[in-house]
Amino acid sequence: MKLYDYLPSGNSYKVRLLLSYLEREYTHVPINILKAETQTTDFLAKNPAGQIPMLELDDGRTLAESNAIILYLGEGSSLIPADKFDRAKMYQWMFFEQYKHEPAIAVARYIRHYAMDSRADQLPNLMERGNAVLAIMDTHLSGRDWFAGDTRSLADIALYAYTHVADEGGFDLGNYPNIQSWLGRVTDHKRHILITDQPSSG
Amino acid sequence: MKLYDYLPSGNSYKVRLLLSYLEREYTHVPINILKAETQTTDFLAKNPAGQIPMLELDDGRTLAESNAIILYLGEGSSLIPADKFDRAKMYQWMFFEQYKHEPAIAVARYIRHYAMDSRADQLPNLMERGNAVLAIMDTHLSGRDWFAGDTRSLADIALYAYTHVADEGGFDLGNYPNIQSWLGRVTDHKRHILITDQPSSG
Repeated sequence: MKLYDYLPSGNSYKVRLLLSYLEREYTHVPINILKAETQTTDFLAKNPAGQIPMLELDDGRTLAESNAIILYLGEGSSLIPADKFDRAKMYQWMFFEQYKHEPAIAVARYIRHYAMDSRADQLPNLMERGNAVLAIMDTHLSGRDWFAGDTRSLADIALYAYTHVADEGGFDLGNYPNIQSWLGRVTDHKRHILITDQPSSG
Repeated sequence: MKLYDYLPSGNSYKVRLLLSYLEREYTHVPINILKAETQTTDFLAKNPAGQIPMLELDDGRTLAESNAIILYLGEGSSLIPADKFDRAKMYQWMFFEQYKHEPAIAVARYIRHYAMDSRADQLPNLMERGNAVLAIMDTHLSGRDWFAGDTRSLADIALYAYTHVADEGGFDLGNYPNIQSWLGRVTDHKRHILITDQPSSG
């Protein structure tokens, strides 16, 4: 199994974090998105959407979309709630993450790191949308430890990835105490890894 | 079971179409998004993200995000592939739909219907992104009947919703022959309904 991956990517980090939880070995294939390595003919043949992360199975079949990859790898684990409604809420928060959270918070972080001279004008709108997303999350976590059901699920992995580096996008997590407590719970796992940890396998 | 719904919404139509396939009865609660009826205190208490569609179960619990709702309602049906990899591909295309397809094609359609005086400047970018999405879909459908696996799945429902009205967003589906054939296959279902069909129940 190969993971095509860009280390600073929160979407990729979701997969690395889950693989660490599950103690799964994999080959790490670094892809530099800043050098357009996702837009080569070879890469586009594997994922026409031209995005990382991408998982390649040993038989050559490929899977894209970070949340689809973690749903695939997480099957059969306790990270997918057994209860049907809790499982549906996990899906809800995973789609919320890709539709509302990532397009605001990850994009603000990207612009501040790499595109301040060309895209800084987008930041005010992204900050407003990102803070609205964080407020929804903080309210949801009032009196709750996890996003779906009573235990850690894939929804927590999906939302943790870019929330824990939201400060790099200019967001002040000090305004969101329930999110801060939840971030602490997520990291409290014996096989937690950092987004900056270089994968050892491969 | 109540479906809070705006009739022209493709996201809502996904749920209506699936409920028709499954011959499930439900109460239809019309919500006019143009009158900000998703932003009232009552609605936000049920869905803090302020969006339709929203499903309310008989016990009062609520579920949001169109693709999470159809995953919930579709459980146990043939619309979720039994094969693990096919199921993962279904998830992949559902996340693709919410991340890349809907934000381009549905938004272009919305602007052309309702916001030409304030947001027309966004159309060139949306058209470029939307056509890139349609090209990826058309290529994928070359030699394939359905998006994931060998039969109709929730991925087809999710992608059909806004693709079949892409012309209302200014897209020319004549450029995408594989998509046109696939649209025909999707509609060829004995319980197919149109996006404009008023739900009879409720």
